[in-house]
Amino acid sequence: MALRQRAVAGQVVGVDIDAQAIAAAREVGALDAGGTDLSVLRATDLVIVAVPPDGVVGAAVQAAAYMKRESVLTDVASTKAEIVRALDERLAARVHYIGGHPMAGSEGRGAHMADPALLLGRPFLLTPTKRTDPAAVSVMTEVAERLGMLPVLLSPDDHDDLVAQVSHLPYLLAVAAVGAATDRAIGIGGPAVWRVGRRGRRPGDFWGPVCRGKLAGLQTRLRQFRRELDPLG
Amino acid sequence: MALRQRAVAGQVVGVDIDAQAIAAAREVGALDAGGTDLSVLRATDLVIVAVPPDGVVGAAVQAAAYMKRESVLTDVASTKAEIVRALDERLAARVHYIGGHPMAGSEGRGAHMADPALLLGRPFLLTPTKRTDPAAVSVMTEVAERLGMLPVLLSPDDHDDLVAQVSHLPYLLAVAAVGAATDRAIGIGGPAVWRVGRRGRRPGDFWGPVCRGKLAGLQTRLRQFRRELDPLG
Repeated sequence: MALRQRAVAGQVVGVDIDAQAIAAAREVGALDAGGTDLSVLRATDLVIVAVPPDGVVGAAVQAAAYMKRESVLTDVASTKAEIVRALDERLAARVHYIGGHPMAGSEGRGAHMADPALLLGRPFLLTPTKRTDPAAVSVMTEVAERLGMLPVLLSPDDHDDLVAQVSHLPYLLAVAAVGAATDRAIGIGGPAVWRVGRRGRRPGDFWGPVCRGKLAGLQTRLRQFRRELDPLG
Repeated sequence: MALRQRAVAGQVVGVDIDAQAIAAAREVGALDAGGTDLSVLRATDLVIVAVPPDGVVGAAVQAAAYMKRESVLTDVASTKAEIVRALDERLAARVHYIGGHPMAGSEGRGAHMADPALLLGRPFLLTPTKRTDPAAVSVMTEVAERLGMLPVLLSPDDHDDLVAQVSHLPYLLAVAAVGAATDRAIGIGGPAVWRVGRRGRRPGDFWGPVCRGKLAGLQTRLRQFRRELDPLG
């Protein structure tokens, strides 16, 4: 929606495995065109892969196979080190890849919960490496600025460490605390507690996709945090 | 607002030390009348003390001095054991006291952020003791039901333990985690992180009024929680 409203791109085209997701995105005015067929990517200059973290590498490799040589591909996953390592390697011969993470969002899911105003003034983290083509950096810096966001360049490892501190660790701790609560306590909580409680109780569901690939930085910060709790008795 | 909209009371009267808070409450339709003078409490059948936790006992004792004998007084603080112990003792000779805690709210502050819909279907925790007059229990049970809430009776200690598990502990941990973050990490966080970060960094401001009176239950749960973290390395 923001890409179109702010005329960042001449055309915004969406591809999803779910045709209904595309229909919803068109309904809210997020797309000029879209469908389930990756071949529409042949005409694009920039592809933004926006899928859950553990699907990013697969989706990016698939998309790159259709893209013009030397066009730019980025992703928006909230963990970067492992994804960037994999894609720097696997996309190098085809497209210019740079990792990205727009630090904005809400609890809402799906196109109908989208709100372009969330982006304004927020950091757009970009994680170039020594293998990143300068063209990818300048394209994405300009995209971030035209979206009204603040482009911030940092290494993938720094990214994961900073985000672990202000986002993943606080969230993880709150989820773990609610997960440890008795059923009676969860009963008096609200819908948010029930959702989180369920997640905390199925560690596989929660820890799996969320933590894979960021556990190194997260565990360092968790260890530090546990030391902070020591004086509390 | 909900008391008036759902006609729970014939008249809703507000008293606050801040005349502007009363004006704002009148503006949003929360009050039939109001002011800064406690003497209006002479005509009331039920007084709901809604001030920060460490001001509840003082405000309740002040209010009770004006109230009719055997009228009902409750409070809405999120900690109960210490407050109920003090007020059971100090109000016994004058009014019927029962501790209360409507489990609903948002991050908003002030009358302009009030939303009566938040209450619907949520638990209204009531904490009678063996000293509580049955009249106070039945008045508040009816008030909760007429507000569209679920009255739940439990002891003050149970209350504090349950609320510590699903509300205070998860919040405390998230605040402490953000408080431990580096300035650079806090910089990429959003406004919510900045607010919490400031709070975590001034332990006195945060821990003082929030934790006084609930630390016993909270510390038990915190200790348990720290054991849960042990396997995470």
